[in-house]
Amino acid sequence: MTARRVYADNAGTTALSKTALDAMMPYLTESYGNPSAIYSLGREAKKALEGARVKVAAAIGALPEEIYFTGSGTEADNWAIRGAAEKGSKKGKHIITSAIEHHAVSHTLEYLKKQGFEITMLPVDNLGRVSPDDLKNAIRDDTILITIMMANNEIGAIQPVTELGRLAREKGVPFHTDAVQAAGHIPIDVKAMNIDMMSIAGHKFRGPKGVGALYIKKGNYIPPLLYGGGQESKRRSSTENVAGIVGLAAALEEATANMAENMKRVSAMRDRLIAELLKIPFSRLTGDPVNRLPGTASFVFECVEGEAMILTLDNAGICASSGSACSSASLDPSHVLLAIGLAHEVAHGSVRLSISECTTDEDIDYIIATLPPIVEKLRAMSPLWEDRMNGKF
Amino acid sequence: MTARRVYADNAGTTALSKTALDAMMPYLTESYGNPSAIYSLGREAKKALEGARVKVAAAIGALPEEIYFTGSGTEADNWAIRGAAEKGSKKGKHIITSAIEHHAVSHTLEYLKKQGFEITMLPVDNLGRVSPDDLKNAIRDDTILITIMMANNEIGAIQPVTELGRLAREKGVPFHTDAVQAAGHIPIDVKAMNIDMMSIAGHKFRGPKGVGALYIKKGNYIPPLLYGGGQESKRRSSTENVAGIVGLAAALEEATANMAENMKRVSAMRDRLIAELLKIPFSRLTGDPVNRLPGTASFVFECVEGEAMILTLDNAGICASSGSACSSASLDPSHVLLAIGLAHEVAHGSVRLSISECTTDEDIDYIIATLPPIVEKLRAMSPLWEDRMNGKF
Repeated sequence: MTARRVYADNAGTTALSKTALDAMMPYLTESYGNPSAIYSLGREAKKALEGARVKVAAAIGALPEEIYFTGSGTEADNWAIRGAAEKGSKKGKHIITSAIEHHAVSHTLEYLKKQGFEITMLPVDNLGRVSPDDLKNAIRDDTILITIMMANNEIGAIQPVTELGRLAREKGVPFHTDAVQAAGHIPIDVKAMNIDMMSIAGHKFRGPKGVGALYIKKGNYIPPLLYGGGQESKRRSSTENVAGIVGLAAALEEATANMAENMKRVSAMRDRLIAELLKIPFSRLTGDPVNRLPGTASFVFECVEGEAMILTLDNAGICASSGSACSSASLDPSHVLLAIGLAHEVAHGSVRLSISECTTDEDIDYIIATLPPIVEKLRAMSPLWEDRMNGKF
Repeated sequence: MTARRVYADNAGTTALSKTALDAMMPYLTESYGNPSAIYSLGREAKKALEGARVKVAAAIGALPEEIYFTGSGTEADNWAIRGAAEKGSKKGKHIITSAIEHHAVSHTLEYLKKQGFEITMLPVDNLGRVSPDDLKNAIRDDTILITIMMANNEIGAIQPVTELGRLAREKGVPFHTDAVQAAGHIPIDVKAMNIDMMSIAGHKFRGPKGVGALYIKKGNYIPPLLYGGGQESKRRSSTENVAGIVGLAAALEEATANMAENMKRVSAMRDRLIAELLKIPFSRLTGDPVNRLPGTASFVFECVEGEAMILTLDNAGICASSGSACSSASLDPSHVLLAIGLAHEVAHGSVRLSISECTTDEDIDYIIATLPPIVEKLRAMSPLWEDRMNGKF
């Protein structure tokens, strides 16, 4: 065990920013009112809530009344998809998605499939990109929803959302995008990008865990997922998580203000990491080398078990992930890596290093010095490695 | 506006306890790992999560694996009810509830009614109690769920849950109880009380907002409401709100440890408040005088508008509520007050003072000194008051 810690799993979760924590503290202490209450302490909380809504809206080019706070990005995805399905089911039961969605989308769609919906899953190319032509060809008269993520959590590939959204709008089909990985990291303008619904999650951009939001374009009503006291304009009931919401908004505002600078600095570090780690033999970058999230460097190292890599990196003080952080309990190779055409045994050797503006050049140096010998060591223990090295497969 | 503040809306929400906040702080700062991650920072978060589960389970007599954390009490209610409906729909579509449920239950049931479920709503007596005989008579072969709250949010009436649960179990019907108002305030033992599912919410017992839990008795599987990464044993997906969960557990543990003492002290203050305020002419206590939550003193004052009362009390520094805090936006009289037999115009004059262990005897003195003159002043402005006083109605 080393004293040094390099946190390179920012696509899994992020450290809460000081700005966000400072913004939250009053609502975890003296300003504890319920925003539904009409007395001053309640109105104070309500004001904070509405201020947060304005900030989130401004960050993504939406109107404040188009922002609905939820308990997570997952809830936002579930709500958008189940809501659109319920609303649209009179018109049709066909939904279009991509092969590399987060499980919050794909598993919700699997559930709907069992309820009689038909799901068309668009393939991606070997860089992880959906083809707009494929989408165009897949849209039918009974298509009631298109849900394609903005940026992938495992390989960082950014989709051509503006064009996908344009195609959806031309055909009058609601377009939802899971922007959980994108928000706060790359510019988003829901109007210019033709987005009808968009999910975000606080903890992916240095806000708190346990809070998310769904943007729903004005006029695009979907029924609630949570019924109750009628909060969030009667669309999402639950006493509002005031501190969490304020923290999410502060973090998103901060990330947006610093985005240009962060993108430049973080993607330069990412590119150095990629260039150096690709010197490892039998290694590959996964995802699009150009259209990718600034902080995501993702690889496959042949003849290495991803999980063994993660544990060995952890011993060296480096936090990284293999496949999706949310499905670490699973032994199946990631559906994303299979969708970009990797063989099962190659996909098992995936490692994702996701950095942020908190990452330093010294952190990158440390990863570059530490990771290659670990790959070498693990390969030396692999029964496959000698054959691979000798070109036997 | 006065400098004194007396917070008497603890049934609406509570101030986060210092114990809970202190427990949360590490997870809002350095221990920011994702519990799904396999590296040490993730395992640290996972350990906190499982420790919280043990605490919550211990507080209600459950097993840790029977506790599923959610984003709110509302989510827990929605999940329990929709899940039981989905699971039970092959057997039948009949659900039994009471006339005084929180909207998180009643509005979810209204939604299910539109989906073809049949809802039997048991009446309550004028103290707000459901009759076990009524439940017994209402259970049918196609009944798939009974959902009756443990204690009412507006009038504090406590239901005979043990007996209701026993009747449900005898007939093999799953029994859910919304214990959002009860947990942390009165003793709960889910086994002894024959409960199959139970909802709780952190912010009602001095934990944080934006986190709740659903107890699901082992073996009583219900399908998820949120699909995704498979957290919470694949039953409730979403990156876990570690800080919130830890805060909920710390607050519940604290409330449970101090419960006997708090109940004694708080109910004594409540009884003094009730005795003094009932000296106001044309006033009534709502709810059961004996079987009621320790902190809830609820009244109707004839010829007074509840909302005007709340705003005038607020000017005097007293935070109180009228009807349900969650539906303050509504102008309709509360369904709870109508269900206990109050006329519309009387129900409009409801005031709920909900105190806690943070309340002092001086706070009670202040309410007793402040509230009666406000009632008098508002009545003097009411066109109805003179006729009422002269016995004209």
